[in-house]
Amino acid sequence: MRPNAASLLLALGGLTLTPLAPTPDPLRGFSPESARIEREWEAKFRAIPEPARLRSMMERLAARPHHVGSPYDRANAEWIRDQFRSFGWQAEIENFDVLFPTPKERVVELVAPTTFKAKLQEPTVPGDPTSGQHDEQLPSYNAYSIDGDVTGPLVFVNYGVPADYEELERHGVSVKGAVVIAKYGGSWRGIKPKVAAEHGAVGCLIYSDPRDDGYADGDVFPKGPMRPRDGVQRGSVADMPTYPGDPLTPGIGATKDAKRYSVAEAPTITKIPVLPISYADAEPLLAAITGDVVPESWRGGLPITYRFGPGAARVHLRVKSDWSLKTLNDVIARLPGTSEADQWIIRGNHHDAWVNGAEDPISGMVVEIEEARALGELYKQGWRPKRTIIYAAWDGEEPGLLGSTEWAEAHAPDLRQHAVAYLNSDSNGRGYFEVEGSHSLESFINGVEKDVADPEANVSTWKRNQLATIRRGTPEARRDAREREDLRIGALGSGSDYSPFLQHLGIASLNLGYGGEDRSGIYHSIYDDIYWYTHFSDTAFVYGRALAQAGGQAVMRLADADLLPFAFGNLAETAQRYVTELQQLRDRRATEIAERDRQIEEGAYAATSDPRAPTRAPAAEPRAPQVEFAPLLNAADSLTRAAQRYERAYSQWVDRGGVTQAGSAGASTLKTINERLLQAERALTTPEGLAKRSWYTHLLYAPGFYTGYGVKTMPGVREAIEQGQWSSVNGEIGRVASALNREAALVSQLADALGAAR
Amino acid sequence: MRPNAASLLLALGGLTLTPLAPTPDPLRGFSPESARIEREWEAKFRAIPEPARLRSMMERLAARPHHVGSPYDRANAEWIRDQFRSFGWQAEIENFDVLFPTPKERVVELVAPTTFKAKLQEPTVPGDPTSGQHDEQLPSYNAYSIDGDVTGPLVFVNYGVPADYEELERHGVSVKGAVVIAKYGGSWRGIKPKVAAEHGAVGCLIYSDPRDDGYADGDVFPKGPMRPRDGVQRGSVADMPTYPGDPLTPGIGATKDAKRYSVAEAPTITKIPVLPISYADAEPLLAAITGDVVPESWRGGLPITYRFGPGAARVHLRVKSDWSLKTLNDVIARLPGTSEADQWIIRGNHHDAWVNGAEDPISGMVVEIEEARALGELYKQGWRPKRTIIYAAWDGEEPGLLGSTEWAEAHAPDLRQHAVAYLNSDSNGRGYFEVEGSHSLESFINGVEKDVADPEANVSTWKRNQLATIRRGTPEARRDAREREDLRIGALGSGSDYSPFLQHLGIASLNLGYGGEDRSGIYHSIYDDIYWYTHFSDTAFVYGRALAQAGGQAVMRLADADLLPFAFGNLAETAQRYVTELQQLRDRRATEIAERDRQIEEGAYAATSDPRAPTRAPAAEPRAPQVEFAPLLNAADSLTRAAQRYERAYSQWVDRGGVTQAGSAGASTLKTINERLLQAERALTTPEGLAKRSWYTHLLYAPGFYTGYGVKTMPGVREAIEQGQWSSVNGEIGRVASALNREAALVSQLADALGAAR
Repeated sequence: MRPNAASLLLALGGLTLTPLAPTPDPLRGFSPESARIEREWEAKFRAIPEPARLRSMMERLAARPHHVGSPYDRANAEWIRDQFRSFGWQAEIENFDVLFPTPKERVVELVAPTTFKAKLQEPTVPGDPTSGQHDEQLPSYNAYSIDGDVTGPLVFVNYGVPADYEELERHGVSVKGAVVIAKYGGSWRGIKPKVAAEHGAVGCLIYSDPRDDGYADGDVFPKGPMRPRDGVQRGSVADMPTYPGDPLTPGIGATKDAKRYSVAEAPTITKIPVLPISYADAEPLLAAITGDVVPESWRGGLPITYRFGPGAARVHLRVKSDWSLKTLNDVIARLPGTSEADQWIIRGNHHDAWVNGAEDPISGMVVEIEEARALGELYKQGWRPKRTIIYAAWDGEEPGLLGSTEWAEAHAPDLRQHAVAYLNSDSNGRGYFEVEGSHSLESFINGVEKDVADPEANVSTWKRNQLATIRRGTPEARRDAREREDLRIGALGSGSDYSPFLQHLGIASLNLGYGGEDRSGIYHSIYDDIYWYTHFSDTAFVYGRALAQAGGQAVMRLADADLLPFAFGNLAETAQRYVTELQQLRDRRATEIAERDRQIEEGAYAATSDPRAPTRAPAAEPRAPQVEFAPLLNAADSLTRAAQRYERAYSQWVDRGGVTQAGSAGASTLKTINERLLQAERALTTPEGLAKRSWYTHLLYAPGFYTGYGVKTMPGVREAIEQGQWSSVNGEIGRVASALNREAALVSQLADALGAAR
Repeated sequence: MRPNAASLLLALGGLTLTPLAPTPDPLRGFSPESARIEREWEAKFRAIPEPARLRSMMERLAARPHHVGSPYDRANAEWIRDQFRSFGWQAEIENFDVLFPTPKERVVELVAPTTFKAKLQEPTVPGDPTSGQHDEQLPSYNAYSIDGDVTGPLVFVNYGVPADYEELERHGVSVKGAVVIAKYGGSWRGIKPKVAAEHGAVGCLIYSDPRDDGYADGDVFPKGPMRPRDGVQRGSVADMPTYPGDPLTPGIGATKDAKRYSVAEAPTITKIPVLPISYADAEPLLAAITGDVVPESWRGGLPITYRFGPGAARVHLRVKSDWSLKTLNDVIARLPGTSEADQWIIRGNHHDAWVNGAEDPISGMVVEIEEARALGELYKQGWRPKRTIIYAAWDGEEPGLLGSTEWAEAHAPDLRQHAVAYLNSDSNGRGYFEVEGSHSLESFINGVEKDVADPEANVSTWKRNQLATIRRGTPEARRDAREREDLRIGALGSGSDYSPFLQHLGIASLNLGYGGEDRSGIYHSIYDDIYWYTHFSDTAFVYGRALAQAGGQAVMRLADADLLPFAFGNLAETAQRYVTELQQLRDRRATEIAERDRQIEEGAYAATSDPRAPTRAPAAEPRAPQVEFAPLLNAADSLTRAAQRYERAYSQWVDRGGVTQAGSAGASTLKTINERLLQAERALTTPEGLAKRSWYTHLLYAPGFYTGYGVKTMPGVREAIEQGQWSSVNGEIGRVASALNREAALVSQLADALGAAR
């Protein structure tokens, strides 16, 4: 669901058949003997995934549109289930009944000063067979837009994020009673109608500007990979930063008999009607807007003068949906564990698409299936994972992480007890390994990356990522890349199926995928199809194979380890960094507010307003108070010390040769340690959840309330500071400090236990 | 000639008829009594300039095309001369004979893969009467392009500056044998063919991208002020950073019998043919280019994919000029001084245009004439300046500062002896007072600015500039604007007629004009005309009046002061800043080189090259050595101490009540001091000039060899560091240190003399 981020995060590496280094690094959590065995199985594993199979599975799964509720969605689920079964897995389809609106009426038209009716239709492209499957395609729309029929002056709001409305206010532009038109990008799309409605707009159009993913970046489809003039990005606009999943059943599984909100009650449905449009449809609307010229950073790639409005241009927007419930088909496959069968390693990718979805999600889905085939092969050869492996193919990710959320909510008690980690992917491309997730797994995933070869550069994926950070990173990132043992991984915001696991249930999670080398402009359009993927993305499916190698090895190491390979040093260091960031953020905000207030008093805004395009001074803001960071600093220190103690205990355990003999007292202790270790991420959550959005319980990672995809780390504190809610900052700090103290206490106890384990 | 800079530099202020403050600041260089008299005359002066007269003079002077050699150029010169005479000035036309090529043949055509012939013609605009004067308009061309007839593959080079060629090299793109197409902007236009030729290109096209001065910024002419699709920027491409003026007579006046180079010998004529084109003509050429997509920062506003080339697109370029000599008509007017008649205050603006030139130069020219009228009025009322005032209306500025340079060269000995200062303007707009120049006049011009009212904001021009810097400046600039006594002025690069005075002869200079509020896209086109100016610029001519008030008061204060109002504290402080900048530049270059070399060794470039759009590692570069900054630091310290001594002596002189009685011993001493003071800027020059360009003798200020307009301060040192010519850096430092030491010695002697003056 989330678009290709060009940001480079990490990279995995290693040759396909032979280890890259003569003496491989020790495997965290394995005794020397179990590591030797593990490496043998992993080498066998890496040899199995085949690009040709990835391609042929894509040809099957993306052959027809397969959105939630469509016949081909069900057919794909059954086919995937059967694939898993054929590999020797237990596999079932699990159903949920969810609200998924589909469009019945869509109108966008300019009604003054001239008239123009938007086409709202993506045409068939000659040579691209699936683009003509119009009968099965969902029309272009934004799911969970409220029904509405509105007319108003048109106002251009750039990306439609809060800072854009501050700029509008500076120029004296109000969106009250207006239809706003926002560019895609700059935030998750659902933020745009949310913020527009907060400012009094009555309707919202979202279009794909050619500067962002159209001709500015390359030839448009089908000559090139970029968005053609009639291409439209579909997508959900439900208020997912409040909660994802079925809008009618927050916090509980959308089973047949679940207690449901009525549609009218559902809080995550938009307040104003929304439709996405192409740049061909947007150009006449934008060209008709009058008013002052927008700042340079707002301008797009159309050959027009971008202006704020409001003015003569008036737009009529009509949206009406079929609000019936639809059935989700989650595919859940299991490979049973042995000695630690009640510890679950979960791997997921969604299978539903907006249309054909070759890239999103099939390029990731086929990798997951290929991993399952390879693991099944190993199983047939005698490999037995200690822990139970669950491979999920989620339905309904596109409308709002429906399948994963409802499953996680339905199975919450079991998951809280048994889940070790959740490994997600969504789609896959060419380039660099992008990893985000729990920092207690940062060191672990660095280890995995070192054992996967980059298909293009003659180095490991890890090495390629390291060198990319050295080439393109800030001086600080460059120094880290050279000197720090592990490459840093980013924190998870939202945009794919890890959210319910990490942010609702507190299960350590990672999101994995390659990307960053190819630009694309077919996201959520009918042109995200086999023709596009096999001409412009990972055309040889070699990055698909690499992702299967990485994902499968990660699963194997987690499933096979004697001691779960969590490490808390990087988590503690990262928490320290977040605290430093928050201190700097507070100081920067304080300086900004003081400076702005001073400039207002000096008359600097008044004196620099151009009478031909007047601007207003912003309102003065109360000065920022000092903030009590000490509890957070102390908690981060405690976690740092606890992590160091744990590392010493781990070293001693390694020095003792690990614990290998089943049935021994040491093995029993280790089992207990593992059972508590898998709870470590849960200590970072709080049952009452974040302010205004209790579904999100993780105190370190959440999607931003006004960014959507973009993560806010220590979100309670950060958003209170960003939004100037100074009275709640110290309380939020206390909550995060408590979480870090809980984590420190748990890690300390684990260190004691591990130190004593014989 | 220089385009409107949006950069804000300074602002003058004060009400038109009454002083802004009840007790005005003391006037530097005046005794209390002479200050009182001066302020009375200045108040009378400020009341005289009339917007209606500015407008009617523009209607006369911009009525027809008036480029060098045209009948209307001569007619304007005669009319201006007669105006000066009618104001009571002595005025003459002084002629020079210069090389000024005019186009005979111009062809630009795409010859493959399809064909397209560029129109190369700016059409008549209905409603704009002067746009139809095609018989008198110079066709669009670049003066001093060599004749040529070339065909080659087309390569897009962004702005065509050296850094752009580094990017091309990284992408494996060579321009050898190619025709390059560069956007206007990013440097003075003459840099583009110079750098292209250095890299082996055979021809050069320069076009105005709509993102830079076309529809991106507003409606295009005639609906708005921006460049229409067929608008073309004419302009000189002679190598002015080597020397300006007549290419055939460097360093000497182009009098009838001057010794001349042949055209073939003239070193400043381009090495390859060049033509400017419109974006309408550029679009089919750019759209035909194949190859990799350019970086985001290179992209313009056309609805195409910008690519590097070379590829299938081939272009034929043919240029041929009439290379005959043309006659310049400089108008030189004098108002004789009394007691210090041999000290000259010179004020200039050019009168020639590329076509009608309502903005450039007539908006500045009419201001100068109006100043002269007002000074003539005062003269009739009995005001008598101590010093001789020379008002010049230069011809031939557009092709290369021809009129000013030839006049300055022809009169060099007299100017070196007599010139106190040169005050330039070129054109005028709406907004902020932009001042650049000699820092020994920084404090002086700040004083002038405080006594001119901004026509829009209810504050002085100085105050408005201060507040603009507070609003938009860096934190450092903001702090300076709040705390420093004077607003900083920029240093002068090139682009208008101050260059021969400041940079060749070492005469303290200032360049003055309002601007920064209106964007424009008619620069050097047929649409820079009365219609445009009176619809989109300073339409009420109130900024014209403000500039006349500022310029005239500056002239009066310099002409009337008992003691010339030079001050050296800001010069010393600015020199210190330049040294700090150079130290930082050296360190930054050293770090960059070391880091790049390290990345090459690490293989970071190789590992991050995308095989679908491969990039190359740059060549390793020798490490930067340490540099001997001590002599420069010592010299700057000496100048600082000398300036402090001078200020103490000045304070004592003020405390003694100044020297007022003519014929006294003190008056005689003061005369001597003034005669030496006016030499102070000369001490910053060196007879041998800069390396590779001996015409430029000023060691603090020069146009950049690869920027053209943009100044390089302490240019010998700065460019040696920038270009990695490490072996010459210490020598260049020695030359600048000597200049600062000469200045310090002179200022110290002046302090002694002033301290002793009774």
